[in-house]
Amino acid sequence: MVSGDGFRRAMRQLASGVCVIATRTRDDKRCGLTATAVTSLTADPPSLLVCINKSTWLGSEIERSGRFSVNLIGHAQAEVGKAFAGMTGHVGEERFAVGRWRDGHTGIPVLADATGAFECRVDQVVRRDTHLVVFGLVEAIVEGDGPGLIYADGDFGICAPVSV
Amino acid sequence: MVSGDGFRRAMRQLASGVCVIATRTRDDKRCGLTATAVTSLTADPPSLLVCINKSTWLGSEIERSGRFSVNLIGHAQAEVGKAFAGMTGHVGEERFAVGRWRDGHTGIPVLADATGAFECRVDQVVRRDTHLVVFGLVEAIVEGDGPGLIYADGDFGICAPVSV
Repeated sequence: MVSGDGFRRAMRQLASGVCVIATRTRDDKRCGLTATAVTSLTADPPSLLVCINKSTWLGSEIERSGRFSVNLIGHAQAEVGKAFAGMTGHVGEERFAVGRWRDGHTGIPVLADATGAFECRVDQVVRRDTHLVVFGLVEAIVEGDGPGLIYADGDFGICAPVSV
Repeated sequence: MVSGDGFRRAMRQLASGVCVIATRTRDDKRCGLTATAVTSLTADPPSLLVCINKSTWLGSEIERSGRFSVNLIGHAQAEVGKAFAGMTGHVGEERFAVGRWRDGHTGIPVLADATGAFECRVDQVVRRDTHLVVFGLVEAIVEGDGPGLIYADGDFGICAPVSV
């Protein structure tokens, strides 16, 4: 039998990029969260998936609005990743004072100077115990420059070349 | 309208860990592929997801066997990641000559000295155009040591600290 703690500990070693997922709430406020469980899925059509804990309000707001953005945090934007991870005490709209945010083509918040940003329409939601897996069709892209911020073993970092 | 090429280019900036997904075929051969679209999902129960292109045989073999392993490639195991990505000319069982592989608790191949390994039972498969999204319940874990290998902007690397 595998324990949740053992699983979490082992999974800390799976590195990932750092993203902020954002949308607009029913009362037209911006809301967002830092997430690391984001992957590219299909290129035709352009689609991705994000995993969101049901205990956050973000998942239900995304289901309601039907739209969200995925913003790839750059190596110099760690403060944005921290603010949206709740590590700085910023809540709700306050978080959008950290980093330069604008409204995207579809009205949802998009991070300027990100390593990349994807505006998505919700196409499917799969409920898996504590989490939602949200499949998004990408409707607009802002290409940015790397390198992106990385989260590995509980810390932020950047990707350094390895000799192979 | 977002092009597949533009999407692929932008997604290159989303860093990820490097995993080899492996299973046993119907004729009891080992098969495996390098994948970067892997995320942790829930801790209770311990679960993860992997995205696999339908054009590979791995997806159908995993659906048939109902089991697969996710092996987190270490920073010194880039040659394993390359072999299972088809970059070295190794095919089928030959790939398992690269790196030290053993049979896990459930009989599927597990990489020794990996940064971590997860033996999974298939719990759900979601079909999304060109890809399968396979949800696995984790039945056994081998914890390893970091740092893991990272794939970002088309190259392998390791995570280096960033000052924030």
